[in-house]
Amino acid sequence: MDPKKLREMLEQVGAGGLTVDAAMAGLRDLPFVDLGYAMVDHHRALRQGVPEVILGEGKTPEQIIGISEELARRDVNVLITRIDAAKAEAVRARLPAVRYHAVARIATLEAHPIPALGKSPVAVVCAGTSDAPVAEEACETLRMMGASVERVYDVGVAGVHRLLARRTVFDRCAVAIVVAGMEGALPSAVGGMVSIPVIAVPTSVGYGAALGGLAALASMLTSCASGVTVCNIDNGFGAAFAAARILQSAARY
Amino acid sequence: MDPKKLREMLEQVGAGGLTVDAAMAGLRDLPFVDLGYAMVDHHRALRQGVPEVILGEGKTPEQIIGISEELARRDVNVLITRIDAAKAEAVRARLPAVRYHAVARIATLEAHPIPALGKSPVAVVCAGTSDAPVAEEACETLRMMGASVERVYDVGVAGVHRLLARRTVFDRCAVAIVVAGMEGALPSAVGGMVSIPVIAVPTSVGYGAALGGLAALASMLTSCASGVTVCNIDNGFGAAFAAARILQSAARY
Amino acid sequence: MDPKKLREMLEQVGAGGLTVDAAMAGLRDLPFVDLGYAMVDHHRALRQGVPEVILGEGKTPEQIIGISEELARRDVNVLITRIDAAKAEAVRARLPAVRYHAVARIATLEAHPIPALGKSPVAVVCAGTSDAPVAEEACETLRMMGASVERVYDVGVAGVHRLLARRTVFDRCAVAIVVAGMEGALPSAVGGMVSIPVIAVPTSVGYGAALGGLAALASMLTSCASGVTVCNIDNGFGAAFAAARILQSAARY
Amino acid sequence: MDPKKLREMLEQVGAGGLTVDAAMAGLRDLPFVDLGYAMVDHHRALRQGVPEVILGEGKTPEQIIGISEELARRDVNVLITRIDAAKAEAVRARLPAVRYHAVARIATLEAHPIPALGKSPVAVVCAGTSDAPVAEEACETLRMMGASVERVYDVGVAGVHRLLARRTVFDRCAVAIVVAGMEGALPSAVGGMVSIPVIAVPTSVGYGAALGGLAALASMLTSCASGVTVCNIDNGFGAAFAAARILQSAARY
Amino acid sequence: MDPKKLREMLEQVGAGGLTVDAAMAGLRDLPFVDLGYAMVDHHRALRQGVPEVILGEGKTPEQIIGISEELARRDVNVLITRIDAAKAEAVRARLPAVRYHAVARIATLEAHPIPALGKSPVAVVCAGTSDAPVAEEACETLRMMGASVERVYDVGVAGVHRLLARRTVFDRCAVAIVVAGMEGALPSAVGGMVSIPVIAVPTSVGYGAALGGLAALASMLTSCASGVTVCNIDNGFGAAFAAARILQSAARY
Amino acid sequence: MDPKKLREMLEQVGAGGLTVDAAMAGLRDLPFVDLGYAMVDHHRALRQGVPEVILGEGKTPEQIIGISEELARRDVNVLITRIDAAKAEAVRARLPAVRYHAVARIATLEAHPIPALGKSPVAVVCAGTSDAPVAEEACETLRMMGASVERVYDVGVAGVHRLLARRTVFDRCAVAIVVAGMEGALPSAVGGMVSIPVIAVPTSVGYGAALGGLAALASMLTSCASGVTVCNIDNGFGAAFAAARILQSAARY
Amino acid sequence: MDPKKLREMLEQVGAGGLTVDAAMAGLRDLPFVDLGYAMVDHHRALRQGVPEVILGEGKTPEQIIGISEELARRDVNVLITRIDAAKAEAVRARLPAVRYHAVARIATLEAHPIPALGKSPVAVVCAGTSDAPVAEEACETLRMMGASVERVYDVGVAGVHRLLARRTVFDRCAVAIVVAGMEGALPSAVGGMVSIPVIAVPTSVGYGAALGGLAALASMLTSCASGVTVCNIDNGFGAAFAAARILQSAARY
Amino acid sequence: MDPKKLREMLEQVGAGGLTVDAAMAGLRDLPFVDLGYAMVDHHRALRQGVPEVILGEGKTPEQIIGISEELARRDVNVLITRIDAAKAEAVRARLPAVRYHAVARIATLEAHPIPALGKSPVAVVCAGTSDAPVAEEACETLRMMGASVERVYDVGVAGVHRLLARRTVFDRCAVAIVVAGMEGALPSAVGGMVSIPVIAVPTSVGYGAALGGLAALASMLTSCASGVTVCNIDNGFGAAFAAARILQSAARY
Repeated sequence: MDPKKLREMLEQVGAGGLTVDAAMAGLRDLPFVDLGYAMVDHHRALRQGVPEVILGEGKTPEQIIGISEELARRDVNVLITRIDAAKAEAVRARLPAVRYHAVARIATLEAHPIPALGKSPVAVVCAGTSDAPVAEEACETLRMMGASVERVYDVGVAGVHRLLARRTVFDRCAVAIVVAGMEGALPSAVGGMVSIPVIAVPTSVGYGAALGGLAALASMLTSCASGVTVCNIDNGFGAAFAAARILQSAARY
Repeated sequence: MDPKKLREMLEQVGAGGLTVDAAMAGLRDLPFVDLGYAMVDHHRALRQGVPEVILGEGKTPEQIIGISEELARRDVNVLITRIDAAKAEAVRARLPAVRYHAVARIATLEAHPIPALGKSPVAVVCAGTSDAPVAEEACETLRMMGASVERVYDVGVAGVHRLLARRTVFDRCAVAIVVAGMEGALPSAVGGMVSIPVIAVPTSVGYGAALGGLAALASMLTSCASGVTVCNIDNGFGAAFAAARILQSAARY
Repeated sequence: MDPKKLREMLEQVGAGGLTVDAAMAGLRDLPFVDLGYAMVDHHRALRQGVPEVILGEGKTPEQIIGISEELARRDVNVLITRIDAAKAEAVRARLPAVRYHAVARIATLEAHPIPALGKSPVAVVCAGTSDAPVAEEACETLRMMGASVERVYDVGVAGVHRLLARRTVFDRCAVAIVVAGMEGALPSAVGGMVSIPVIAVPTSVGYGAALGGLAALASMLTSCASGVTVCNIDNGFGAAFAAARILQSAARY
Repeated sequence: MDPKKLREMLEQVGAGGLTVDAAMAGLRDLPFVDLGYAMVDHHRALRQGVPEVILGEGKTPEQIIGISEELARRDVNVLITRIDAAKAEAVRARLPAVRYHAVARIATLEAHPIPALGKSPVAVVCAGTSDAPVAEEACETLRMMGASVERVYDVGVAGVHRLLARRTVFDRCAVAIVVAGMEGALPSAVGGMVSIPVIAVPTSVGYGAALGGLAALASMLTSCASGVTVCNIDNGFGAAFAAARILQSAARY
Repeated sequence: MDPKKLREMLEQVGAGGLTVDAAMAGLRDLPFVDLGYAMVDHHRALRQGVPEVILGEGKTPEQIIGISEELARRDVNVLITRIDAAKAEAVRARLPAVRYHAVARIATLEAHPIPALGKSPVAVVCAGTSDAPVAEEACETLRMMGASVERVYDVGVAGVHRLLARRTVFDRCAVAIVVAGMEGALPSAVGGMVSIPVIAVPTSVGYGAALGGLAALASMLTSCASGVTVCNIDNGFGAAFAAARILQSAARY
Repeated sequence: MDPKKLREMLEQVGAGGLTVDAAMAGLRDLPFVDLGYAMVDHHRALRQGVPEVILGEGKTPEQIIGISEELARRDVNVLITRIDAAKAEAVRARLPAVRYHAVARIATLEAHPIPALGKSPVAVVCAGTSDAPVAEEACETLRMMGASVERVYDVGVAGVHRLLARRTVFDRCAVAIVVAGMEGALPSAVGGMVSIPVIAVPTSVGYGAALGGLAALASMLTSCASGVTVCNIDNGFGAAFAAARILQSAARY
Repeated sequence: MDPKKLREMLEQVGAGGLTVDAAMAGLRDLPFVDLGYAMVDHHRALRQGVPEVILGEGKTPEQIIGISEELARRDVNVLITRIDAAKAEAVRARLPAVRYHAVARIATLEAHPIPALGKSPVAVVCAGTSDAPVAEEACETLRMMGASVERVYDVGVAGVHRLLARRTVFDRCAVAIVVAGMEGALPSAVGGMVSIPVIAVPTSVGYGAALGGLAALASMLTSCASGVTVCNIDNGFGAAFAAARILQSAARY
Repeated sequence: MDPKKLREMLEQVGAGGLTVDAAMAGLRDLPFVDLGYAMVDHHRALRQGVPEVILGEGKTPEQIIGISEELARRDVNVLITRIDAAKAEAVRARLPAVRYHAVARIATLEAHPIPALGKSPVAVVCAGTSDAPVAEEACETLRMMGASVERVYDVGVAGVHRLLARRTVFDRCAVAIVVAGMEGALPSAVGGMVSIPVIAVPTSVGYGAALGGLAALASMLTSCASGVTVCNIDNGFGAAFAAARILQSAARY
């Protein structure tokens, strides 16, 4: 039941064209039907300027094209994550406006300009070059959400001076996303160095005891730096979304 | 090497009382010695008004008293986490100004008023009454850091209407900390309902396949709500600290 | 907002004492406030005759007494699970009407007769005597929900003839709850022998590779008998509740 | 020993053509030989109308064709699970009556009409579109067993209003099968909303901490909604079979 | 149905006092009722001379005394495993004939002499002194089953010469039970040195990565020595029983 | 140092051609050099008639051919395990005497007749047809070691009557190898039914909570049937080798 | 800030061309900028003669060629690890001076002679031929770092005499690297036999309970031989690097 | 057979008092009997000055006293690890020369002066104060083995400047033992900073995802700093022993 329909019903009651009992019966299912609309309100702040997101993994090029075309018709920006080069090529053959970001494994369709989100950039930090795909997934997602990005790459703890040499970057950032595989120690070092929110993203980089990223994940969850929070393995998109929640909240509260 | 000493050395060089070679030798270790001071600067923003934290677990009452007395002499606020009632009683016998928060298992010593942190409160949400100790640890930590708190308790997903009935609380909060044990589903429901940052805290509540909180932890890391970030099991303190980082960042950037 | 309040509001609109706009504003939060009541409807069928349940584990005797007294005042039947003998004794000292079932670790307070649930009994099967506490937790929960029980105990697969010798029991039961620890093989044997629903409950009986019940749990989930479903380790209460859902459904659909 | 042979033996004893000792010796192995027949009786209720099931996974098209042809000759309905499109194509080339259900990865051969099972439908609920193959495996299995199905798709807990909007569906269903990957929270939400049996099926959808479905599995086993039971990961067939056991039991007991 | 009853029934048929139809009906349940007796036959060989076994763990002294007294009345030998000193003392206070073997945590009651089992002894090998309780559990169980034992203790692989120095022991043994904790390497060394059956028993000795015996268990299962078989962690009793099966089989086949 | 060389040295000492000091020096390394020879003695019993074994997995056809040709020249029987059809074809192209056993994934080269091992056969039992490759690996290994085999296939516990119907097979077997995947319950049922040694082999058959065979493995290790021992997952070869150790021991001790 | 720039600044201060305040400001960032240089000093000892290392895994041939060409221009030795034959071939097509070591999966480019490291060789021990790739990775890395190597191959604990027969090798080695898969027992045997440092490397050789090398890893970490240290699974490179640290340290301290 | 006995035998052969055949027979078991002596030789270098080690855990005070008294009689130094204060007190009541090191949970008995081991000290680094017991276990073990120690405590990566400020300590140390719990990141930071051997020791400090030290263990095994090796959780003794192997090797090779 949308607000318009509710208003009509109340007007009928007011006009005597509907008994109270009939209105009671009609309202019985209101709570559930109406919920979707109520929540969209809630999400409106965040959703303005936010692209529609398609998970490319597990979908055929045809399915991705289908969804993309429908969204394109609705004139919204589109972000396709975890899409490999071959699928992206197939999609671009049909939708030439789509751009592919190979390292990030992301394809985008920008129907309209992206409104800026937040006054300060998000620092995206990563330990080694193998972690770059996940870091770039975060960067490209942030860009599509309107946030600006400062990259601080290749600053793993085995060469801690490289991280320290970049320390002033954090003076001007509102949030830090820290991406690391193997032992996942970087968020602890960053978290001990800055006062801004630190979102840690473990990657599946490493072998043996790295356990597909579980070692880095456990490492980050038990970080000795207080107040570090963690995303799922390889989830650069999720980290960017969490950063966007923070920028959004900062702008409103 | 503190700045004063560095200035003296430069003045000596300027005055000719020290050769350049001797100054070079003296400066050789500067980078490392000086780092501590440089970083304190970095952390100053966050640390103003933040209490000193003592982990009570694994320490004897004597050790806690020793550290507390030393801090009390330095006139700082003190937050003692994971301290049971017996230890707290022993500490209070010597330091009567200490107050004990039984459910949160926290003891505090407030040497001076706590400056306010953030314009909007932090929502602390929890699934069941068994999760209260972790939620209260977050609440009391937030209070000691100057943040205000809105409690939204006993709103587990098995009675999703209870959560929905409280939804307007989130309209006025800047961050949500969501605490849940067992299947850890609550952060997904909250994350899908609000646009503010959601910090999920799994608890060790549950048995068997709950695996001491690992089931809830995995559940939260794989949440279908985008941008939920996660703390270690039972880590109410860490979630509060992460929320404080967000409030702090919002105030500056 | 309860139905009475909603009716009043509609009557005011009908009487012209409330404008449609004011009613719209007043109804804005209706969906969420009202949900609880709506759902209670949904659950009414099951809840008739169902006792209020208190999880005794992790609660002090004082807390259990407090909740029990409140419920006793409301004249409902009470089922307290996972309560040890000492706690039960403390509760009985204050509430003499409480009865304790030692093996099941359950305490009950029967304020009024329990209406019968289902036409046929539930078979509660268990492998060894060590599994009895979990089986009895199921039996006593079933009794408090109005279901009758047929016990088929000590029929582990290492002596498969004992199970076969009892096979006619299943001819008159509507559901089978099968409790087993160690290798958890019993539900496969029962599931292959009967056409009724089989609810498997792994127990934490066993050591080493039994992994606190995880071996039995995995065993039951991978049962070669089709259509066996599984509860959490040691969760006799949950299995009984699932059986009650089945009996309830059979009575209505 | 089949009943006919047993009767002959008894007749010989009655006629004096066989001594009691010889009959005793002949009967020595009776218990075991005869068991199969005895059990078929037991299973007859369930098996009437139930298709023969072939697990397609791990079999070559030739093997599947072989078994299917043999069953076709016996004039029974056949359900082939976990069969990919290529294999199904190969099977259909030889057995054109076979139909393939691509999403469910099921092939069927309907030799005769399927008798109806149960008075009310089974609700098949699923969280996201990635979970559809498992949900459809359940649906198609239910159809082949004679049960009717109500699909409630794409109602994950991150948008809890979508689930609530569909709540009246459950008013007319006898059982709910709830399929979910990632954090596996959906069965808790459904279980708290309905009184009918809830069979939860975790899927292997998700990555990293999803651990191939183990996170969802653990989540469902520790559900805060009482009486939810669980099947193995991706086991849509098993869930449907469990639902059929419930419908069958309801019809008899 | 016991053999006597079956004979009577057949005699009645022979005498014309029972129709074939009535006998058929009477025999309908024969298979299941009769199974127990049939199997006892099967087990008789092994069970001659084998003590009745009581698992002491998880039983109160009263329960152990109760079962023991009942068995004592039936004049059988009794083996009580996993019983601590305090419980054993309580049992001995009532049943003075019980003897306690402290290291093995076994109590025994020998009602009659134990018949010898096997022509050759069983070698019980163990790595370190911490493994002795499990090794002794095996030894005492073997003694109660009539097997003789050769102890080869303290021959861990870190001092491989100690094992080699004892190699001639294996020349006269029919089976080797090899008990080891920590890295569990000993069965590989023994298995490569002897041609007799090697039964490996991991112990829970060790900490950290020993994972309560799982490291040793995995080590033994992946032994590079062919044909080593493995028991559950700390299961000295099971290993002895397996050895008895071998000795028994050797005597018969 | 071989015996001949040792004898020569002693003869030189006896003849005065070598001083005691020189002999002492020469013998200093004796223990280690000589060990190999000493142990071969030990193993001789088992090795007579035992084929040389090549693990085909991870080897190229060229490597397998190389080793096989070398062994063929030495006139020994050869058993190549875990070799797929393509590799086997390549090997047979060069060594036509090689025979391939497709289900068992074994290739054999019989240079001379295989001497019989043991008086009684080994029962090889398996739960479902998917377990056949592992069971056949055991059967073919046993055949190459001279043992005779009784196959008892397709007797999973979900149809326990099928196992019971075959029970007399065990009356004439000296050992039982029991192969099962999924919940791995079969060894418990067999172990409770027979007194002979039971060697359990878990298979990697199953999905989800089957965890690649770990569920069956844990199930077998915690079997409620006493004295069941266990091999690594899918290790049919190891189980056969263990059975051969038992037959060998029975023949000697 | 490099030392030259710092000297210039001090000289300016000394000459009066720079005020102390300006120098203080200029030095503010010194600590961090300068750190890299300071640390290079620290590492210089080790890095002399050490090749540049490229991880081949996860890189395209083009990427490897790019990095290699850049390094070749700088006239340093290059070690490419985890590179398969196809990639190596592609690299060699462009850089013919590159040599490929197939078993070790290593490619090398020797721009200049390798200075010797350490007075004594490193023993590289391995259990079976399947472990050779990891052992060879260690050997080739050691060679490129200037260390000499003694190979002790195929000495698994199931044939402990083979290890003993080679014992004198250890008399002349400074370090032992011990590589083993399956049960990983070899380091315990070596560690109990020698007094030199023992670096254990588990391999992923094995199946089932070998858990991809985790069984061997846990085994080595819980070794009963004191003072054995462990590397990640299959990490032959890391073990060689650790050995080089030891040789390097021995040469200096 | 000890060397003396061997010499006598050879002399008898030389003197004609023993035939070659008889000597051959007598020598048949030589290899194995003699091995112990041969190996002691091998270990002599390390064992000079090394104390006898008793694992206190799991032993009664009486057992510890018994072993200690026997060792005291043999005039060797004794190191008792993992002994709590109460046991140590009981031991000291009988052996007053024993000294207890409370933090290290070590008791020592110094019968004679400890010879120095190595020219340079071992750096013992630890992350937080909770890790001190493990670090002190290493320190005290090193002291008893004759090595000198440099403590670098409380330098966790969350305050990386504290580690850098201590960097010159490593200039004069031959080995670094790095002890850390929680995320276990410290060895990576140290390993990237120094060229000496780095031995990492994870501790069981931390909760939840720390998994009793497994997170730190996995972190250290996957360290991004090359050539870090790892000991078992909390194994300060083992790390010290490994360092002693290195110092010992450096002195000889």
